[in-house]
Amino acid sequence: MSEHLPNSLGARAFQRLEALRAYTDEPGKITRLYLSPSHLQSIDFIVDEMRKAGCDSVYVDELGTVVGRYEGKTKDLPALLIGSHIDTVVDGGAYDGALGVIAGIGVVEALHQRRERFDFAIEVLGFGDEENVRFPANLTSSRALAGTLDEAALDARDEQGISIREALIANGFDPSKMKSLKRDPKSVIGYIEMHIEQGPVLEAENLSVGVVTAINGATRWALTVKGEPGHAGTVPMNMRHDALTAASEMALAIERIGRSHETVVATVGRFQAYPGAVNVVPGETRFSLDTRAPDDGLREKIVAMIEAECKAIAARRDVSLRIDPLSSAKATPMASHMIAGLSEAISRRQVTPRLLPSGAGHDAMAMAELCPAGMLFVRCKGGISHSPLESMTEADCDVALEILLDFVRHYKIET
Amino acid sequence: MSEHLPNSLGARAFQRLEALRAYTDEPGKITRLYLSPSHLQSIDFIVDEMRKAGCDSVYVDELGTVVGRYEGKTKDLPALLIGSHIDTVVDGGAYDGALGVIAGIGVVEALHQRRERFDFAIEVLGFGDEENVRFPANLTSSRALAGTLDEAALDARDEQGISIREALIANGFDPSKMKSLKRDPKSVIGYIEMHIEQGPVLEAENLSVGVVTAINGATRWALTVKGEPGHAGTVPMNMRHDALTAASEMALAIERIGRSHETVVATVGRFQAYPGAVNVVPGETRFSLDTRAPDDGLREKIVAMIEAECKAIAARRDVSLRIDPLSSAKATPMASHMIAGLSEAISRRQVTPRLLPSGAGHDAMAMAELCPAGMLFVRCKGGISHSPLESMTEADCDVALEILLDFVRHYKIET
Repeated sequence: MSEHLPNSLGARAFQRLEALRAYTDEPGKITRLYLSPSHLQSIDFIVDEMRKAGCDSVYVDELGTVVGRYEGKTKDLPALLIGSHIDTVVDGGAYDGALGVIAGIGVVEALHQRRERFDFAIEVLGFGDEENVRFPANLTSSRALAGTLDEAALDARDEQGISIREALIANGFDPSKMKSLKRDPKSVIGYIEMHIEQGPVLEAENLSVGVVTAINGATRWALTVKGEPGHAGTVPMNMRHDALTAASEMALAIERIGRSHETVVATVGRFQAYPGAVNVVPGETRFSLDTRAPDDGLREKIVAMIEAECKAIAARRDVSLRIDPLSSAKATPMASHMIAGLSEAISRRQVTPRLLPSGAGHDAMAMAELCPAGMLFVRCKGGISHSPLESMTEADCDVALEILLDFVRHYKIET
Repeated sequence: MSEHLPNSLGARAFQRLEALRAYTDEPGKITRLYLSPSHLQSIDFIVDEMRKAGCDSVYVDELGTVVGRYEGKTKDLPALLIGSHIDTVVDGGAYDGALGVIAGIGVVEALHQRRERFDFAIEVLGFGDEENVRFPANLTSSRALAGTLDEAALDARDEQGISIREALIANGFDPSKMKSLKRDPKSVIGYIEMHIEQGPVLEAENLSVGVVTAINGATRWALTVKGEPGHAGTVPMNMRHDALTAASEMALAIERIGRSHETVVATVGRFQAYPGAVNVVPGETRFSLDTRAPDDGLREKIVAMIEAECKAIAARRDVSLRIDPLSSAKATPMASHMIAGLSEAISRRQVTPRLLPSGAGHDAMAMAELCPAGMLFVRCKGGISHSPLESMTEADCDVALEILLDFVRHYKIET
């Protein structure tokens, strides 16, 4: 069979990524939501690919995670986990998530072809629920393995009112065994996830790959400014309490503060004035804040600066400001020996490793609670993800897979 | 009958305004849209009140305008018109429009009780389509009288697809006679409209009434800023082309320029960022501009400043800016002898007249093309209109009616 394989790891991965496109809930788009018919069919495809690649055993766990195991020199050795997720957002791309699963399969295939085995097993993981699109959940699949998912999380319901638990049972899974999915920390030696960057940094610096230092922590708020609505023609400028211009000043302050530290981002993504008529001075404006930083102390400092500045603007303009925290997530530093191992693999290619934080969340956040975790970012076009425009090159995919394979070959179990 | 009347003009007007509240398309609210069942019923009410007040003849014209005529010393003298509109916005107030019609009825009633007649007739007008809520039209009723309405205006359709013409015919009107509604300028000597201020100036200065100098001209734009959408976590601040912060800077520039001249207002009423997700840097922001000034040259200067400043911001931030003009209306100066006549009536009460522009549009804009027009503003609470919170006092209403009556008694036909 191996004589029919394309020459490069990248070409083989691209074949699989292209094949995976066909599994979609919406023809003409890539929409593969957790436990949808297309997700279930894609599980069968991944199982098949894992077997063909040389995994010694393949199973699907009770939450729908596909697990393909390639044994080490002896059976039952602790495993290095390589994975990501196969679900997508609605009308998403072909690489976000899928790349990390296909990369794991590619590594196993390469090792199997060369009959290489190590002092550790390799397990490739294809998680099903990372995007949190169908259910209001959070990394369900990987948190189950890390042992940080509680039973109540399975009560999350989709728009049709179906819970995760009900969807699992309807598809032949047994969610009552969820707790048994927790891995014994002694049985795993690390988790590595290859993922498109979803940002423009590598492209701007003309680099194929980067090593993730930390997954940024994030603070999200909903903000509401209330002023006084008024007739746009009759209320003199000096008698207005315009909620829109007050909020605009806050948005600019947030941008300015976000710019003050290189690794920080601060974004106003939602922003709407009410009532929203051409001839009415807005009495209310609602907007959101999303602040991220690789260091929790820095993020807290930035958030405090934003709060103080917004409050000062509200006071100066005599409008009210309400802040409703939406969420707060701590940063997840990647394991230093993972960062070192990936950096060394890059350096062996005579390229200076580029270290960068991940602004987006990943399964590695959950897995870092179980074992040392690391991430390798791959350049994508325009920093675009969660879109049909998501794009990466086969050449970059090949470089990334060669580095991942090299990393695995040189991997030393940390004791 | 007169022995049952309340003592003051204000009290009698308030009785009528209260009675008019009952005519609504939505119970519990005041919603009286042009040619709706409640508008048609309110026409009957106004006809009845005009007759009871002493009008010599009352008719409803082919566009639904109620006309009550109180003859002068002889029949067929040219008329001083007193009027406003009886339609409202959705969930509107009891005074906007209605006050001017009820005031005209009150003036006729007072004159009729005292058997006073002048060298001119008085006609009270109750227009039906000023608010432009049901149909995308513009002062249909008053423009028909001024002779500035063209046939095509009757093709405007409501949300159900019914045209003004069809609605008129369905209710027994004959829109084919629209052109005949144009008044002979020789038959009218002036138009006077009493209206709540819809602004906070009189309240702030503790004055019952004000004399309108001009109805402001207005320039309205739709603006679209396009930047680049991006992941809120992964696109560094210095690589963003954030359409929201660009538009925020423009909104603040518009506010600053609007503040630079006392009689100018500049408002961003609509403002929304797209796609509008917490974790997405906005790629597009759409907002509106509404700039008004009592002098067209000044307005043009302000609008040019705003355009230049917004373009400079777009260029500096490397985003695109598209400006779609929505409308541009010239200022309508009130006739100087109307301003003088109203000012003198106020001065006779030992009060210094307060002259101010009208930021809102009124039927007087259309009528000014037919004859000398004037407006008397009455203090309202908090400058609020187009709302159930719209409020004025009976005492202010009484003062305003006494001034209007005094103005009419002293009115000299300009030759």
